[in-house]
Amino acid sequence: VRTAFLISSGDELVAGRTVDTNSGFIAEQLASLGIDVLGITVTGDDQLRLEWAFAGALEVADLVISSGGLGPTSDDLTTDAIAQVAGRRLLFDEEVAARIRGIFAALGREMPENNLRQARIPEGAVVIPNPIGTAPGFRLRLSWNGKHRHIVALPGVPREMTAMVKESVVPWLAAEMPGEHFCSRVFQTFGLTESGLSELLDDLSGRARLSYRANFPEISVRVTVRGEETEAADRLEQVSKIVRHRLGPHLIGEGEEKMEEVVGRMLAERGLKLAVAESCTGGLIGHRITNVPGSSGYLLADVVAYCDAVKTQVLGVPRTLISSRGAVSEEVAEAMAAGVRTLVGADIGVATTGIAGPHGERPGKPVGTVCVALVTSAVSRSKRYQLRGSREWIKLFTSQIALDWVRRWVLGLEPLEVVGRR
Amino acid sequence: VRTAFLISSGDELVAGRTVDTNSGFIAEQLASLGIDVLGITVTGDDQLRLEWAFAGALEVADLVISSGGLGPTSDDLTTDAIAQVAGRRLLFDEEVAARIRGIFAALGREMPENNLRQARIPEGAVVIPNPIGTAPGFRLRLSWNGKHRHIVALPGVPREMTAMVKESVVPWLAAEMPGEHFCSRVFQTFGLTESGLSELLDDLSGRARLSYRANFPEISVRVTVRGEETEAADRLEQVSKIVRHRLGPHLIGEGEEKMEEVVGRMLAERGLKLAVAESCTGGLIGHRITNVPGSSGYLLADVVAYCDAVKTQVLGVPRTLISSRGAVSEEVAEAMAAGVRTLVGADIGVATTGIAGPHGERPGKPVGTVCVALVTSAVSRSKRYQLRGSREWIKLFTSQIALDWVRRWVLGLEPLEVVGRR
Repeated sequence: VRTAFLISSGDELVAGRTVDTNSGFIAEQLASLGIDVLGITVTGDDQLRLEWAFAGALEVADLVISSGGLGPTSDDLTTDAIAQVAGRRLLFDEEVAARIRGIFAALGREMPENNLRQARIPEGAVVIPNPIGTAPGFRLRLSWNGKHRHIVALPGVPREMTAMVKESVVPWLAAEMPGEHFCSRVFQTFGLTESGLSELLDDLSGRARLSYRANFPEISVRVTVRGEETEAADRLEQVSKIVRHRLGPHLIGEGEEKMEEVVGRMLAERGLKLAVAESCTGGLIGHRITNVPGSSGYLLADVVAYCDAVKTQVLGVPRTLISSRGAVSEEVAEAMAAGVRTLVGADIGVATTGIAGPHGERPGKPVGTVCVALVTSAVSRSKRYQLRGSREWIKLFTSQIALDWVRRWVLGLEPLEVVGRR
Repeated sequence: VRTAFLISSGDELVAGRTVDTNSGFIAEQLASLGIDVLGITVTGDDQLRLEWAFAGALEVADLVISSGGLGPTSDDLTTDAIAQVAGRRLLFDEEVAARIRGIFAALGREMPENNLRQARIPEGAVVIPNPIGTAPGFRLRLSWNGKHRHIVALPGVPREMTAMVKESVVPWLAAEMPGEHFCSRVFQTFGLTESGLSELLDDLSGRARLSYRANFPEISVRVTVRGEETEAADRLEQVSKIVRHRLGPHLIGEGEEKMEEVVGRMLAERGLKLAVAESCTGGLIGHRITNVPGSSGYLLADVVAYCDAVKTQVLGVPRTLISSRGAVSEEVAEAMAAGVRTLVGADIGVATTGIAGPHGERPGKPVGTVCVALVTSAVSRSKRYQLRGSREWIKLFTSQIALDWVRRWVLGLEPLEVVGRR
């Protein structure tokens, strides 16, 4: 299995009511196995369109993975389309039916008869269990114009689809490629551009496959090695060591952890309490921190001081400092961080002030001028950055820098020097 | 033109590094013209794959719209693929070349020669101007197995593509359908589910086409009518009147305006100042308000009181109130709203407190219990809601309810009674 084609089905996708995020997830998982996705077809809930999509995909790729159209209603047509294209009968799977009945019984709800549509499986297919919902998936091996092909059919609900890909599809694919063993590791970075990252690491591509993914404000790099099991694991370790060394302070974590999760974990582990004062980020730092369950254990407060009076009265920033240096200045950022830290008795105070735009530039301070500060009992530091981009982008990037300052301070690292361009 | 097929190209799309949002936008615009999208193909930057995608799309649909692959580099292959499939030569368009040279001259930058690749246009195609970037698009009328077809090629940069669709493609398509006139209007709603909306409005579908789009937390409905120009405009007015009446307080705006923009505009027009106190929403309300340019004109401050000490010391919530009623209570929410309003001297104080989960439930207060309060010089009100969903969802929905409270108070409406399920 070297190549794949993805099919997403659903009227809501072709009508533009929903964006297809399933395909991106599947493509990324396949990349970690060294499988190239040649294309993606999105169709409505229409059996002829689905058959056309499957036939076209089977022409070109070893593996076709579809998501959507496995539910109980009459517009769930993926199973019928696959049976038609593959020339297989649909058989009623008693085990699947029993499981569906069991789910309804456990909920104490009557099962609408049409749910048993989901127990119809093409002859010769292997059921892929759904750990969350009622619709199982299946995979089917077939010959198409003399070539070996695989079809994998998954439900469209993202939570169910992702669980099934991780628990069943990836392990099965790994086993399908005998003698080849894949191991991969994801590194989350911040502070380098995608091209900067690739310059830093691309000479390793002889020893491992590197794939970059911009999930702004983080950029991740996945390192995948292929080979005999022990050898592959060893090589992944060696390459990972080099990657960690080269990324240095730009490496924020391994795996799927985001910046706010990394920072949260560090604060929780050390029992440190954080206070935030935001101007240009407008609450985004607090929002991101509190997206993490358990954040009430380390975030004491966040004061969004969107006017100067709040900076002076609530945070205790001297009025004269604002008038002499300007509200967007390293000095005011530092006073805000110190102020909010004292106000709530936190270990760390962090603050932002800046011009998110599109208006509000001042002499010598264009849109994108932002200042970040961090104050603890031991240090008090502040720094100015020049960002470019939309208002949303400047807010997001500034919040990321502020969180990165906390991370770096906890680790005893210097703050980010320069911000790479998008 | 009744049917369309979309093609998105880019290696980053099939590798899962970027999600294709272009197709959804185009599909939605086409829906407003009464054109059905039959499917979407996503391919990498590969000329053979692109040719295959165009050929397949031309089989089934009257109109094929592609985005991506029109840039200056050697992996921009859409123009070549279209020329090949349509059997047209590529001609060098002097006007386009002059415009590209002009853009570089205006920036004072030297133009890399490969930019002139973007001036190659298939014979017989009509150039679609790009008001933002260097890569123009084009449209081509052709005959495919005896059927009339159109190809439209657009760049992949979302900002450029959307501008070109709105300014050129939609007007051209409207003109292509003689005798048929389309008018449409979008209504933004909050507080009803998608199925609740459809129950409320679906009997109008004989007089207009209704399409729903969930852009949580808002759900929009687009009303499209087709007919002779004056008659269509009249009918749209009549149907719009009924829609407005039926939506009542759930109608938050018309067009593309989001809740935070509606609230911001209302506050700015009336010169009202807002202060926010957040517990469970953690800064999200402030973040959303400050996403709107000019929000420093009406948002004074936002205090995220993520621990009880901040509620009492900064916001002046009586300690006894927290111990007797609990931090998640209508009374504490009201005291927070009153406290932050007084602290910064705002006209309106709004506050949230609740349990976003997944942990933290208390007796009688399961995850998803949230309280919202609003205090002005004239009113002081508070209310408890029971939400269901993930932590992110509960935060988002609570922030939406709080903003909706401000909107409704400004308009003299009662607060939202019950929250519809997702």
